[in-house]
Amino acid sequence: MQRTNGQIETKQRVGRSDRAAQRKDTRALMVRCGIELFTERGFQATGIDEIRARVSVPKGSFYHFFESKHAFGMAVVDSYAAYFERKLKRHFDDDSLSALERLRSFVEDAKGGMQKFNFQRGCLIGNLGQELGGIDDRFRDKLELVLQSWQRMTAACLKSAVDADELSSQTDCDALAEFFWIGWEGAILRAKLTRNNEPLDRFFSMFLSTASAVA
Amino acid sequence: MQRTNGQIETKQRVGRSDRAAQRKDTRALMVRCGIELFTERGFQATGIDEIRARVSVPKGSFYHFFESKHAFGMAVVDSYAAYFERKLKRHFDDDSLSALERLRSFVEDAKGGMQKFNFQRGCLIGNLGQELGGIDDRFRDKLELVLQSWQRMTAACLKSAVDADELSSQTDCDALAEFFWIGWEGAILRAKLTRNNEPLDRFFSMFLSTASAVA
Repeated sequence: MQRTNGQIETKQRVGRSDRAAQRKDTRALMVRCGIELFTERGFQATGIDEIRARVSVPKGSFYHFFESKHAFGMAVVDSYAAYFERKLKRHFDDDSLSALERLRSFVEDAKGGMQKFNFQRGCLIGNLGQELGGIDDRFRDKLELVLQSWQRMTAACLKSAVDADELSSQTDCDALAEFFWIGWEGAILRAKLTRNNEPLDRFFSMFLSTASAVA
Repeated sequence: MQRTNGQIETKQRVGRSDRAAQRKDTRALMVRCGIELFTERGFQATGIDEIRARVSVPKGSFYHFFESKHAFGMAVVDSYAAYFERKLKRHFDDDSLSALERLRSFVEDAKGGMQKFNFQRGCLIGNLGQELGGIDDRFRDKLELVLQSWQRMTAACLKSAVDADELSSQTDCDALAEFFWIGWEGAILRAKLTRNNEPLDRFFSMFLSTASAVA
């Protein structure tokens, strides 16, 4: 009996653990789908029914995963922010490049991403900031924190450039990193209108002139 | 009879002309309301019923004024672009200021506008570009043309700065004007997140450094 019970218990545990894993997969699929649709069309124009249908979640089950569309939006931002931080870290930690080349490496990667999606997506944080920054305080606060986190990583990369004498020791790396993200989000927006990477190239080459000039 | 007929004709003409004027006023009010709501909430999230109700146009009459919401959106962009060009012209034609001070004068005006609406509106062209640039080619083309027109005006202002020796004769004014509008739209977007004018100040001071550096 003990053994049988033990087996049943194990089966139950496996069953529960399978269901938990499946549930986690489904949730991750929904978030991934949210990243795509929110980036391309925005938060307000994307219905949760479409997300649900795309990942084959039964009608009415959305709220077993997220308590509201708003909570779902927050989870989507968290996931995108984590993905993007990994991307930045990959470039900024690349010891085979000089510090400024690491920043350029990120720029080239982003250009590839823009082209891959035919200049239709851009940056989720910029898009939601534009759409919701003025009308939703919780999104506004979260999106600003994400940008500040990217800025800190960029400032650290610029500080490495100072240490390596690529930039003057007088450089205000925090201010320059803030300037980078202000202009970069503008360049991504503009590239959606020009349907090419010229705004990103224009911004980055001017940014490098600025970086030399502000020293 | 002739006289009576003449009077009736005059009355009819006046009546027609009054109705035409009223119709024009109503149309202008709808467009103005569109500028406000599209700038604050976006195109897709704003219903034409709300526009109609705000300017007291009877249900179903919207389409007497505009053949579609899309056509209305285009008229809203045209009106905003014309308003903004007048604003730029006012600053850029101000002979009491040096050329670079004219650009600063526009920046200060824009900062006042951002503050007036509690950093919730931003720029209609940037907002619609972000929202629709990737998904609607007619909006995309129109918005890009508007930005190019602002850039030409800004390049002319920068050329005056070159003529007055405020900037080096080597300055590429077209490239610098393009850089200004790429970064400026990014700064407006960011100010919606920070709820203050720091991103506009940061961008403009760095822009001036760039203007001196690229010479």
